[in-house]
Amino acid sequence: MNSFDLSVLFFLQLAFILAVCRMVGMVFKRLGQSQVVSEMIAGVLMGPSLMGWLLPDFSAYLFPSASKPILFAVCQVGLVLYMFLIGVEFDIDLIRSRLRSAASISLAGILAPFALGALLAFYLASDGSFFSSKTTQLQAMLFMGAAMSITAFPMLARIIFEQGLSRTSLGTLALAAGSMDDAAAWCVLAVVLASFQNNMNIAVYAIGGGILFAVIALVVIKRLLKPLGRMVETAGEMSPGILSLVLMLAMLGAWFTDFIQIYAVFGAFVMGIAMPRGKFAQELHRIIYPLTIAFLLPVFFVYSGLNTKIGLVNTPHLWLIAALVLLAAIVGKGVACYLAARWHGESHKEAMAIGTLMNARGLMELIILNIGLQRGIIEPALFAILVMMAIVTTLMATPIFERVYGSKAARAHQIKPVQ
Amino acid sequence: MNSFDLSVLFFLQLAFILAVCRMVGMVFKRLGQSQVVSEMIAGVLMGPSLMGWLLPDFSAYLFPSASKPILFAVCQVGLVLYMFLIGVEFDIDLIRSRLRSAASISLAGILAPFALGALLAFYLASDGSFFSSKTTQLQAMLFMGAAMSITAFPMLARIIFEQGLSRTSLGTLALAAGSMDDAAAWCVLAVVLASFQNNMNIAVYAIGGGILFAVIALVVIKRLLKPLGRMVETAGEMSPGILSLVLMLAMLGAWFTDFIQIYAVFGAFVMGIAMPRGKFAQELHRIIYPLTIAFLLPVFFVYSGLNTKIGLVNTPHLWLIAALVLLAAIVGKGVACYLAARWHGESHKEAMAIGTLMNARGLMELIILNIGLQRGIIEPALFAILVMMAIVTTLMATPIFERVYGSKAARAHQIKPVQ
Repeated sequence: MNSFDLSVLFFLQLAFILAVCRMVGMVFKRLGQSQVVSEMIAGVLMGPSLMGWLLPDFSAYLFPSASKPILFAVCQVGLVLYMFLIGVEFDIDLIRSRLRSAASISLAGILAPFALGALLAFYLASDGSFFSSKTTQLQAMLFMGAAMSITAFPMLARIIFEQGLSRTSLGTLALAAGSMDDAAAWCVLAVVLASFQNNMNIAVYAIGGGILFAVIALVVIKRLLKPLGRMVETAGEMSPGILSLVLMLAMLGAWFTDFIQIYAVFGAFVMGIAMPRGKFAQELHRIIYPLTIAFLLPVFFVYSGLNTKIGLVNTPHLWLIAALVLLAAIVGKGVACYLAARWHGESHKEAMAIGTLMNARGLMELIILNIGLQRGIIEPALFAILVMMAIVTTLMATPIFERVYGSKAARAHQIKPVQ
Repeated sequence: MNSFDLSVLFFLQLAFILAVCRMVGMVFKRLGQSQVVSEMIAGVLMGPSLMGWLLPDFSAYLFPSASKPILFAVCQVGLVLYMFLIGVEFDIDLIRSRLRSAASISLAGILAPFALGALLAFYLASDGSFFSSKTTQLQAMLFMGAAMSITAFPMLARIIFEQGLSRTSLGTLALAAGSMDDAAAWCVLAVVLASFQNNMNIAVYAIGGGILFAVIALVVIKRLLKPLGRMVETAGEMSPGILSLVLMLAMLGAWFTDFIQIYAVFGAFVMGIAMPRGKFAQELHRIIYPLTIAFLLPVFFVYSGLNTKIGLVNTPHLWLIAALVLLAAIVGKGVACYLAARWHGESHKEAMAIGTLMNARGLMELIILNIGLQRGIIEPALFAILVMMAIVTTLMATPIFERVYGSKAARAHQIKPVQ
């Protein structure tokens, strides 16, 4: 297939992806589920787990291997813009305001799932169907630990926002804990990815380069952008020139962190943190968010779904492992965060809400899993098991949250606003 | 190179493209030129005409042929979203309000350049360096005619808007004539592309399919979308669900018109016309426009620039042809529109302004030329000549317009508002 044929097909792929995501989304919305769950599931349905199995010819026609580079490049740009926005909205002050409780909840939310994940990996590492032969036991434990400790921070933030909890004590605490948690898990992943270079020089290069990049972005670029932040504040809107500079920086950060063998999403996230706040950040959100969410991210869900072969989990033994992984994920994350919140004096209700929100893995988990699969750390069977874990923990979040916390209206009086 | 390497490179390509466009844009802004001219030139500079010639190794590293399908697919999506928005803003009422003058200006602006272009092609068709051997003389004449009669409608609209002329008699007339002109030129191109199928069945299929598509979009889909238009009007904003449906329709239109061998931009344009007006259209513009302009269209300019080899125009004979093409373009379009406007009683000043605006070819010309090159209708040498014609006519527009029409402030009294 030449460039032209591939571009024609790409339009059809986009139309199909948007249509399926929309239809699955309508069903799940009726069930009170979030958009992200429906897209995770839509992605799996369009992959070999359903469509490739029921309609193999159509599936091979619609997603031929020649079009993989295009889908991959486009979904990576989508992820990078998305993580960039997560960085733009990352709020250090929020963490400071609830530092102690947030720190211990997020610590519990990392240590417990990390330990359980690492323990599972310790037993699974020798079995060739989970980790690739070049993955050492230590790397397997680190990767599994990091994968288990991920929180769907953007989803947590959206639920908090949608439920009108942004300025409440609970909302602040959950946002602070969630963001610390994710930042830590991504750092662990960076170390795993760096250590995965057999050549020790490359690992040093990756870690050193990563630190250098973070310093340049968060000190130099942040300072250089300050005057632009004031310009946007005064003008009340972002000029096309500034937008194009910002996009250039985001792409440069993504490229550099990919180039030093960490991963594009880190670079984008860190670059997002370096952006001026206030009107500047609002404008970036206003301009980048809608098209990224509606147009680019669905491509990622499909790309991930094309890699997900639920059919590989085909023995009682594998389903047992899947159940264990799910149990470890829920106990390690949800229950541990609940206990930490209780220990800090939160009510049963609030602690349950925090545990549930922290437990959802969402899109973030899919990102980390796809990195692991693409880098050859994990095998497709474990990938499928972990995707199911991500879907189930995300699926649980909204109904449990609604159940323990009641509807929005009923809550109006119960919650003490922060400060 | 595997998918991952290509995606890493894609980030670097995007960062580089954005940086170069920004720098060239800053220089041209100082010179009082429009953004589109600077990006047309930036694209050519990044291609073999400058960067590939001065820095061949870097150029081969940054734009290897393996990454062409990705650049092509992404820039096609950019063009489709752009043409979709042009369709969304296409205003039938505007044409109706100035039908007679607009019709004769646009008729002059098509017939004259078409005749001159066809005449040139008649002489050039036998020379193998301009048209490919499989292009018949008639096809060469039709393509060259259509290519000469293009108007940079979006640029014309932007200049009218930026100069505060939107609601004036001149503005309305220029917008109406420009949009009629472009619609007609695209129809001719559709016929040329259809006729380019050696198999007559495919031509019938293309034209029949195109008409069927236009009817379905402009009658059925337009009607089905009306309730959604009212929903958005009431809500005051577009929900993510409606946005995703609209994007799906745009991609489907693009795919279908590509599939029947016309071209994706037609489908997107027609689908854009079918969209509800009012708040619905404004929301689409607000959401899609900034990222399309800042992020996706620069990729098209580069893709086009990579195909532009000015170095092929390397003999006095070829430069003479280039000069003739430029002369035919300016006389055929600018002068003819000026005369038509004068004949309809416009003042020398207004007629000059209209002629200048209609004469600019801009991005639209690059689109049609890339179609011609990619379909194997024209050869790279003629492509380069026509790209130069597009750049020069676009470059002329702003300074001449400013000169004959004076500054915005000085104009405030002179122009009679329409109605």
